[in-house]
Amino acid sequence: MAGAIDYRDHVGSNPEKMFKSTLFESSRLLLGLNCLEPGQSDRAHTHPEQDKFYFVLEGEGEFALGEDTLKAGAGQTIIAPAGVTHGVTNNGSGRLVILMGLTPWPGP
Amino acid sequence: MAGAIDYRDHVGSNPEKMFKSTLFESSRLLLGLNCLEPGQSDRAHTHPEQDKFYFVLEGEGEFALGEDTLKAGAGQTIIAPAGVTHGVTNNGSGRLVILMGLTPWPGP
Repeated sequence: MAGAIDYRDHVGSNPEKMFKSTLFESSRLLLGLNCLEPGQSDRAHTHPEQDKFYFVLEGEGEFALGEDTLKAGAGQTIIAPAGVTHGVTNNGSGRLVILMGLTPWPGP
Repeated sequence: MAGAIDYRDHVGSNPEKMFKSTLFESSRLLLGLNCLEPGQSDRAHTHPEQDKFYFVLEGEGEFALGEDTLKAGAGQTIIAPAGVTHGVTNNGSGRLVILMGLTPWPGP
């Protein structure tokens, strides 16, 4: 049986695009990290059948959610229920690290 | 459209038992806080059809997971896939605050 998973062991960066790391996946849940360097984005998209949550661990992000734009920092959650368009941009000065859950998880 | 949800607005305590607060619920996901004062427990139980994750936000906990006991502190995740018995005890000296996800969510 695996031990506790420390998110800090999964943080990373990709100069080309948002860095993703998987903490757990099953047919029910994808739980992972999204790491965005300053200026990076995950462009707005929609999951018709999945709910997504973002829980900000480090940094600050600007989240598109439907027609709205919301700012969130460490300790704040953004929820995109199924069918609601969402995306995120790191317009802060430090790395943005998000705990991300997508449920259910139809696979990559 | 609601704004960002700050978990610190949802922390609480109950002298009788673990305090729970819901951040979001749908048929796909229950996302909430579990807050345990020192000495409090959520006794071991099993969800045959749901995956659960615990992400520790504050404090330190001792988690039962199947036959094992795992310690986890802030920034660490414990996963209990469907069918795996799990529980948690706060045997630390401060409040234990956990972001908890259960998926899917058949309702209360």
